[in-house]
Amino acid sequence: MDRNQWFTEICEEGGSAFSMKIREKLHNEQTPFQRIEIYATEWFGNLMVIDGFVMLTARDNFIYHEMMAHPVLFSHPSPENVVIIGGGDCGTLREVLKHGRVTRVLQVDIDERVTRLAEEFFPELCVSNNDTRADFLFEDGIAWMQAADAGCADVIIVDSTDPIGPATGLYTEEFYRDCHRALGNTGILVQQSESPLFHMDIINPMRKRMRSTGFNDVQTLFFPQPSYPSGWWTATLAGKQLLSETYRGQDAGHSHLQTAYYNAAIHQAALAAPEFFHKALD
Amino acid sequence: MDRNQWFTEICEEGGSAFSMKIREKLHNEQTPFQRIEIYATEWFGNLMVIDGFVMLTARDNFIYHEMMAHPVLFSHPSPENVVIIGGGDCGTLREVLKHGRVTRVLQVDIDERVTRLAEEFFPELCVSNNDTRADFLFEDGIAWMQAADAGCADVIIVDSTDPIGPATGLYTEEFYRDCHRALGNTGILVQQSESPLFHMDIINPMRKRMRSTGFNDVQTLFFPQPSYPSGWWTATLAGKQLLSETYRGQDAGHSHLQTAYYNAAIHQAALAAPEFFHKALD
Repeated sequence: MDRNQWFTEICEEGGSAFSMKIREKLHNEQTPFQRIEIYATEWFGNLMVIDGFVMLTARDNFIYHEMMAHPVLFSHPSPENVVIIGGGDCGTLREVLKHGRVTRVLQVDIDERVTRLAEEFFPELCVSNNDTRADFLFEDGIAWMQAADAGCADVIIVDSTDPIGPATGLYTEEFYRDCHRALGNTGILVQQSESPLFHMDIINPMRKRMRSTGFNDVQTLFFPQPSYPSGWWTATLAGKQLLSETYRGQDAGHSHLQTAYYNAAIHQAALAAPEFFHKALD
Repeated sequence: MDRNQWFTEICEEGGSAFSMKIREKLHNEQTPFQRIEIYATEWFGNLMVIDGFVMLTARDNFIYHEMMAHPVLFSHPSPENVVIIGGGDCGTLREVLKHGRVTRVLQVDIDERVTRLAEEFFPELCVSNNDTRADFLFEDGIAWMQAADAGCADVIIVDSTDPIGPATGLYTEEFYRDCHRALGNTGILVQQSESPLFHMDIINPMRKRMRSTGFNDVQTLFFPQPSYPSGWWTATLAGKQLLSETYRGQDAGHSHLQTAYYNAAIHQAALAAPEFFHKALD
């Protein structure tokens, strides 16, 4: 493999690597927070890389973004106020704004450059950025959540980088406690939670912290994500109420949302955990 | 990436590559049919490669093998006679033999060396090879199926390499017609069917051929398979009867099978197709 023709992300903890064939490097920038690179790939369309890790590709981000938005929104009885922590590429925001019940989405990402580069290189993810329901803050999501009004949000979506470096604070008890306080009575938090094959040592303590900070129902969603390590990914839902009781199955089944991955059957399917996962949680 | 430290499989049609860090090359052999290499990897345990393509790793083959065996067996009302075409590594055979209803399994793989090397380097997959219900033929599965007695099998499992080279004949109308004849009234065929992200051009015609050769119900199963291209894989079930009508859900839910991936919820989950898949089939 010619280094110049491929972008490769090595996953040390999984002893593996995923590579995409590239046509050219489109952008390379060190922001105050991180290094952002953009490539044009052969098959995956444009690729955004942050600090050497694949953030998203044009071709397969639909799975991740739909699964970060639709399961949590259909699990809430009336999702009006949504807060996205991270999510600077605006892909999750676009999916959230497909829900007519949503009246306001606040996206809090520390690095404005992610959003500006998404507008330039992933315009399809930013088609709803001018929606009057959308607001953008470019500041620290952890600090924002600390200061948030109690009960201000129905749904919090934590769409961040991996729990190393600046995002570590998004996986702590303190942060979950702040989220719990910021959520209304039927509020739900959802957070990306890494690979079930490689990262049970992250998923398991994360679930425990969510429970210990007062969330009554914690459910992990499983879905493919080909450009992430192992090609298999999770997001974890933490609800104040039982998620199965507030799930709007009828709405999910007749939503007429324009999606490429999500539907009501996929929603239920994503909740099914493999045997080894059940055993690891015991 | 140092070439000597990594095994890399390039997926040309997906413009991508998957690599595993290796400790050493354990074996390299050209059989009359194919080149077989065995590596010891850092994280995935032993790795078998055939003609440059990952066949299996010790660490993640459980998903594939369980999904090739348990959904089809629990979808048959009384699976006694099972035929495996390919499957020389014996991982699918091991899973099939976990079912008490099964009275005979015939494994037909063209290359005996795959089985001998599995015995040496993947002994955990071969623990049931001495089961008195198991028989082995090392010959061409296509020719075997042509000559098979009508109605001799309850379940046929096609656990082969990709539909290029010697396995091409396993994806033809002629082969499916032979399988249909060899199956009893409630018989079911299951076949590995590649990546939903990269290979809709294989899955779609395959499903059509299964229908045109007389199978009344065709259902694709979706599951992760980290060491295969895109990390996302399928197997396709073709039943003479409606699969949902013969599915033994009670048995699947109380099977006490020792599995690491499969359970009754995963069975249902694997049947949920993403939106783009539904659209591609229309």
